[in-house]
Amino acid sequence: MDDQEWFDRLETAADEPGELFEHFETRSARGLTFQVLSDARHGLDRGTVLVEETGEVVPGYPSIPRILVLDPGVRSFFPDAERIAVEEKLNGFNVRVARVDGEALAFTRGGYVCPYTTARARDLLSPAAFFDDSPDLILCAELIGPETPYTSHDYPDIESDAIRVFDVRERHSGDPLPVERRRELCREYGFEQPPFFGWHDPATAAAAVEDVLADLDADEREGIVMKAPSGARMVKYTTRAQHHNELAFAFSLPYEHGRDFLFSRLVREGFQAAELEDDPERLRQRARELGESILLPMVETIDAIADGETVGEDHTVRGDPERIDALLDHLREFSLTLEILEDRREDGERVLTFRKVSPSTVDRIDYYLDGGVVDE
Amino acid sequence: MDDQEWFDRLETAADEPGELFEHFETRSARGLTFQVLSDARHGLDRGTVLVEETGEVVPGYPSIPRILVLDPGVRSFFPDAERIAVEEKLNGFNVRVARVDGEALAFTRGGYVCPYTTARARDLLSPAAFFDDSPDLILCAELIGPETPYTSHDYPDIESDAIRVFDVRERHSGDPLPVERRRELCREYGFEQPPFFGWHDPATAAAAVEDVLADLDADEREGIVMKAPSGARMVKYTTRAQHHNELAFAFSLPYEHGRDFLFSRLVREGFQAAELEDDPERLRQRARELGESILLPMVETIDAIADGETVGEDHTVRGDPERIDALLDHLREFSLTLEILEDRREDGERVLTFRKVSPSTVDRIDYYLDGGVVDE
Repeated sequence: MDDQEWFDRLETAADEPGELFEHFETRSARGLTFQVLSDARHGLDRGTVLVEETGEVVPGYPSIPRILVLDPGVRSFFPDAERIAVEEKLNGFNVRVARVDGEALAFTRGGYVCPYTTARARDLLSPAAFFDDSPDLILCAELIGPETPYTSHDYPDIESDAIRVFDVRERHSGDPLPVERRRELCREYGFEQPPFFGWHDPATAAAAVEDVLADLDADEREGIVMKAPSGARMVKYTTRAQHHNELAFAFSLPYEHGRDFLFSRLVREGFQAAELEDDPERLRQRARELGESILLPMVETIDAIADGETVGEDHTVRGDPERIDALLDHLREFSLTLEILEDRREDGERVLTFRKVSPSTVDRIDYYLDGGVVDE
Repeated sequence: MDDQEWFDRLETAADEPGELFEHFETRSARGLTFQVLSDARHGLDRGTVLVEETGEVVPGYPSIPRILVLDPGVRSFFPDAERIAVEEKLNGFNVRVARVDGEALAFTRGGYVCPYTTARARDLLSPAAFFDDSPDLILCAELIGPETPYTSHDYPDIESDAIRVFDVRERHSGDPLPVERRRELCREYGFEQPPFFGWHDPATAAAAVEDVLADLDADEREGIVMKAPSGARMVKYTTRAQHHNELAFAFSLPYEHGRDFLFSRLVREGFQAAELEDDPERLRQRARELGESILLPMVETIDAIADGETVGEDHTVRGDPERIDALLDHLREFSLTLEILEDRREDGERVLTFRKVSPSTVDRIDYYLDGGVVDE
């Protein structure tokens, strides 16, 4: 397809093809040519993929806005909805599963085909029947569990990994199916979904949601997504546990994250504590735990580097040996430095634990530990 | 003077006048024309001031590099010095006092003449005799105490404000006098100086300095500056109390500071805790206090804004009414929004407490409290 043909099919705010297509980059994978939008532009979401040979589109997944206060945040965000659906926001890796050139592929947020996630999505979802029936839909899913190449949040009853479909979208428009239709469809095809916390009146949802969040927080789970019935309007809100865990992770690799990453999580804590912690002693206790999430992981990392160790993100993956090799090849394309920490066989599968080394953190901390100066 | 004449007199790394002078801006004050360098460039420090009418130079004060670990930081920073001077770093407002067109003026770090600080410097230093004897020297001093228009750190025995001369420099080269010469000269003219913690062998200074810092920390004081005998090479190191106080201040006005301001102070805590807190319980206690420094001031500010209050930096100044008016006029030149909190007479002086309102913090927090979303 030429640019004009693509342009006519896409729901973009750009005035002419050149304005849009200058932002796409060309990548090859699996014998196909993908045009990928690496940032949200002109009304199209980041990770939008156009398949040259087949004319197929995989829409990007939109970023979900966030509120920092529940009341009046929920009400203000849904001024017109009669009711809103509250679902759990899972802490994993967001992928879009679409049939491309006849086979199901899993695309990362940035529009890459991850071979490992693709294989796991096929194993866990068996989506062939779904795509036979609905070739124009894509599945938006979260790969969760302790054994994924990208995240490692623990969930009870998930020993390795699992997948949860949280959205189903039309491939050309990118529009979601209505919440009820999507939940029905997932049940019909046997796709597991995130826990559902019911429908609520937006005017009174904040109080109901507060209870849901208290339970999620106690279980160290991430938070919730609230959606209008159409599925199109959605907003998220996260738990204290999630903020603290993310800060602990970020400060364990302090030079790997943008300053904004750290700041935004600290500010979330501020607004949530101001809204929810009425008791001064609870507030103080929360402040102390926040401090522990920041300082203890940072000191642990500095100590490790002082002892000559490397630091980074550790992940475990499992599968047949070729699949693991394909994953490592895929990760190395991003110029990551990988260290193999453990490589063993278990029940005929290869179980690999590897570290994505964090070079900025190692280098900066080494420099300061050697007496390097900060020029201010 | 024309640019070429200035250029020939300045010790700059620029190749030709235009390269340097494009970075200067012209300001008028007290009937004089000042060419001011607002950022460090071509070997000249930020705040360098050239006085058009008189041909006088006021060199900028260099930024002092910082080490994050004492051992081997101190040793590495002074590989050749036989001994280093350790002096207290005071928490106040850095000004350069120079005689310009016959009268002593106090220049801020950015090269502005502050009328209030100028008047206080004249009152507190009586520098006329010094400048009569040494017209080619400038005094680098810290205005400290609870009553200054810029800082408000408390020191025992300072009820209002005081000034401490921590450096004396040659006005054309910007070079400092040697530490011993400077301390002698200050004694001779009756200028008070920062506390002096002796001369130390750089190879063993880290341990000695650790004890000094423990005392300073217990008294909530800022830290130390270490200098080679010539005064030219210097490096700073700050206390836990200073990091926590600065974080508490910054998180009380979270949208007023760059993300780097917050991050740098958190990282200082990480390195210092890794080096100095050997006991896990002390480390945990420190982490908890860090968390309290972050969350409690932020929640207090959010609560205040929710209650319709403004927030900002509060300062108290004291003096004759014209002096206070001149200060307010000076501050308003920077487009600051000032709120008068208290305005009274005491012993014939005007005592004014005012707030520099922090508009970004008020606006952002208001927006989120009204249910505004964060687009991620």
